[in-house]
This record gives sequence, structure tokens and C-alpha cells, in this order.
Amino acid sequence: MKTTISSKTKKATINTDGPFVVIGEKINPTGRKKLAAALQEGNLDYVRELATKQIEAGADILDVNVGMAGTDDVEYLPKIVKVLVDEFDIPLCLDTPNPKALAAALPLVQGRVLINSVNGEEKSLEAVLPLVKEYNAAVIGLTIGEEGISNDPEVRLAAAAKIIERAGKLGIPAEDIVIDPLVMTVGADSNAGLTTLTTIELVKREFGVNVNLGASNVSFGLPERDVINTAFLGLAIGAGATCAITDPMKYTLSIRAIDLLRGRDGYGMRYLKYYRAHAPEKTEKS
Amino acid sequence: MKTTISSKTKKATINTDGPFVVIGEKINPTGRKKLAAALQEGNLDYVRELATKQIEAGADILDVNVGMAGTDDVEYLPKIVKVLVDEFDIPLCLDTPNPKALAAALPLVQGRVLINSVNGEEKSLEAVLPLVKEYNAAVIGLTIGEEGISNDPEVRLAAAAKIIERAGKLGIPAEDIVIDPLVMTVGADSNAGLTTLTTIELVKREFGVNVNLGASNVSFGLPERDVINTAFLGLAIGAGATCAITDPMKYTLSIRAIDLLRGRDGYGMRYLKYYRAHAPEKTEKS
Repeated sequence: MKTTISSKTKKATINTDGPFVVIGEKINPTGRKKLAAALQEGNLDYVRELATKQIEAGADILDVNVGMAGTDDVEYLPKIVKVLVDEFDIPLCLDTPNPKALAAALPLVQGRVLINSVNGEEKSLEAVLPLVKEYNAAVIGLTIGEEGISNDPEVRLAAAAKIIERAGKLGIPAEDIVIDPLVMTVGADSNAGLTTLTTIELVKREFGVNVNLGASNVSFGLPERDVINTAFLGLAIGAGATCAITDPMKYTLSIRAIDLLRGRDGYGMRYLKYYRAHAPEKTEKS
Repeated sequence: MKTTISSKTKKATINTDGPFVVIGEKINPTGRKKLAAALQEGNLDYVRELATKQIEAGADILDVNVGMAGTDDVEYLPKIVKVLVDEFDIPLCLDTPNPKALAAALPLVQGRVLINSVNGEEKSLEAVLPLVKEYNAAVIGLTIGEEGISNDPEVRLAAAAKIIERAGKLGIPAEDIVIDPLVMTVGADSNAGLTTLTTIELVKREFGVNVNLGASNVSFGLPERDVINTAFLGLAIGAGATCAITDPMKYTLSIRAIDLLRGRDGYGMRYLKYYRAHAPEKTEKS
């Protein structure tokens, strides 16, 4: 199944039978003081720098999240989207829980956007799905129901089912819905990883849709987070995840290796190309 | 299903429902000049050093391989086994294609050994399985048939079936057979990883037995081999591999992370304990 996102001239296809898709997570002020400060000063150069770096590092799509205490998504999201649309040519993922911010940013996009996100609560379904339909977008569906986040994979599956069903009633096909199985930290609950992996397997088996991973949360609070995040990518992709909102600078080489090991990179061309383009950097760092 | 190996006082349980088991690969002169030279001089101190280091780094079992051009397994294997049995207390994996070397080394072992390996060829089945039975050992079964190594996972599965069936006729139960799905390098055949992963899934589904991985071969000839090997561990363990002959110094932390992410490490105790014991070393290196 294919979910196709686009910018002016570029396409990104999230594909259950294709290579894994990297959604760059860095344009997100949560925990990133420099970006938060730059946005508050109205300085968009740091956004430009983060976009450039992530594209160079292999991001197929850029996530854009401006949510932070004391700022207004409705003001900032359109501003950042405008810079990215005017000055770059990469598909975008609009990451906000605020439907008003989406409504303000969506008219600025060229091509086809991924909306991040809707969930299984009535309030969210009613506010977000009509925008998905109106702008012919694709959407990430978080497996959260009215009861909040469940630790039971079957309950998460039911939330996915509800989103797919409600979207279908508006004429949004399953291929335009990317289900997010939710990733909680294993530092707080050592079954959290297994819960997510099981949810991915259930969603894959039941619906065969694309599955997104907010991969970095899983290691929160633990030492050697990169080791845990890298291990989780292998497990989650093996289980059926097809894209992740993650750090392209840190994880793209591992993701290319995973594609190669799954027979999704003929002659290892993408792996080798990525390695050659980034080897000097890596050598400096290590 | 559980395959239990032991030394004087220690047990190692390879368990389809338990944490992953690390079989240290370093006592193997192939490509390791220093060990080859030390063995040729009759100097076993380097073997002692490799045993100590691997045990500290988290090896549950030590693989012992002395095969090299110009030496005689029948002479060296018993010598090394004697040192390891007398001076250490860790289960062993006797790694030789030579049944005479096995016959010479097996009487020296205390506890229960893992023999590496038998394969699906008549000659191997007839020579090795009676030793497995006589010494109440467990055995690694390579998925090679009379026709050699196939690229077809179904043919590899058939070799596994033949080994399990023939062992059964001698009264060796399936739980004492660890199937090795074979790992070829993706540098030569970019479908090689997928072939192995598919074989693991088939073996798991058909027989539910333990599955061993010679994990490091997969990246041979490619750059950033550790990245590829680490990615493969996640994919292969997710598919059903339960132990690997690998480098404990390089991969144990990733393996502990994988156990944690699969809900096989309550409260992350093993991950954190391993991290704390090895953190200073890691910091020095990076």
C-alpha cells in the first residue's frame, strides 16, 4: 500500500513494499532551546539551517512542529511553512494538535501534505478529518481512543480501526492513513516496546496500511539512547513500520542498512551512496 | 523451547521465550593472526585472555574454533578445551567440521556442550549425530543439504527438517537442535539478508526450535560493518533468532537493548546493569 506525499516537484512514497521513509523531526522546539528562542525572535534562519541539514542527511519528508509554551501555532506554523515552501522543495508533515493552525497553514502548501495527526477521539476526528478531505492530504492516525492511551495492543488496534472507518465515510481511503502505534518509554514500563511492536503487527495484519513510528521516545530517560533507538528501528521495521519521525543525522545510515538487509536496496546502491556521501562527517565525529 | 548448555556449575539456556544468548566468537584464528601465531607456538595465554574478555563482555557461551591452514584440529581443539574447562566456568560450543577433533575434545568437557555443527548432508549426519547422542550434547544444525547452500528459504527449511528428523531417529529431541539459517553477505547478493530472515521465520513457524545466527558474515566487504551487523541483529531477533555467534564486546549492549524492547528484561535491569558495568570503557573509546 502506498501513501504519496509531495512538494512542488518531489514525491515521497511511504510504501509497505518499499524502502523505509525518513521524516525529519528536528523542526520542533520541544526540548530545543535554540529553535524556541529563534522562533520567538522571528528569526527563521535556524529553521532554514535545520531544513538544509536534514535534507542533506537523507530526510524524505520534514516534520514541522512549532508547539511550545507561550507561542501560538496559528501564528508560527504558517510562517514556517511559507519559508519551507518558498525556499525548499521537500514534502512536509504538519505537526500540530491545533486544527486552527492546520487551517491557517494548509492553503500555503504546494503539493500534498501529511497531517500529523488525528486520533480516535470524537473531537479530533471531527476537527481534523474534514481538513484532510478538503486539502486532499494524507494523515497520521494516533492509536488513542476516548479512554486515552491504552497499554493493550488490541485497544490501540480498535482506535486505528475507528480512524480508518471514519475517514472512509468521508471518502478518505485507507492508503492515505498512516497509523502511529504510539511509543512510550521502556524506562517507565519495560513492556512498552513490546506493546508497540505487537500493535504494529496487529495493524499490519488487519489493515495492511502504512505505519509511522515516533521512534525516539522509546529510550527516554535511559543511557545510550542511540543504541536503544537503533535497536528499536530494526525490530519495528521488521514488524511492519514503514516510516518514522526521527533524527536523519543519527539514524539514516542504520535505516539504509535495514532496507538492504530486507532486500529492498538492489545491489546495496542506496546504502553505499549514503555511506560515501556522509563518510567524512562520520569519521570526524567518531 | 529451551536448549540447555552447561559447564561445571553454570547453565546457559537458549530459550525461544527468553532473553537472547550471546556465543562469543573470538576464539577463532580465521582472520586473527595473533591467535593463529599463539596457537602455533603452543602459547595458550592469548586464549585465556580472549576467554576472560568475552566473559566480562557478556558472553553466555564461548565458541571454540581452531581451524586454520596448517594446523590440526585433532591436536589443538582438545588442548584449548582443556584450558577452558580447567581454568574457566562457562559453557562451550565446539566449532569444528572435523568429527575426529570432536571425538578427541568431547571427553574433556564437564557439563553439556553445544556442538557446532552438523548439516543436512549424509556424511555430516552420519558422523556428527552419533557423537551428539553419545555425549548428550546439543547441536547447531546448518541448513545445508546435499546440493550445498541454497538461496531458496524453502530448501534451507528442508535441510533443517532433515536434520531434526534424523536426530529424532537417534533419540535426540528437537529442543537439543539449534538451527542455523546461514547468513551470506549482502555485499555479494543484496537479497542474502532477506533469504536468511525468511528462513528464520519459516523455521520458527514449522518447528519452533531455537535459531542461531552467525551474525557477522552478513556485512562482509561493506563499509560500516558494525552498523549493518547491529541492524541485522534487530531484524533477525524480531524474526525468531534466539542466539548468535558474535563479538560480545561490540554487540552485547545492543542485544540487551533488543531484549528490553521486546519485554524480555523486567524493569530494564539487565540493560542497566550491563551499561553500568561497561560505561567507563565505552566512554574512553568514543
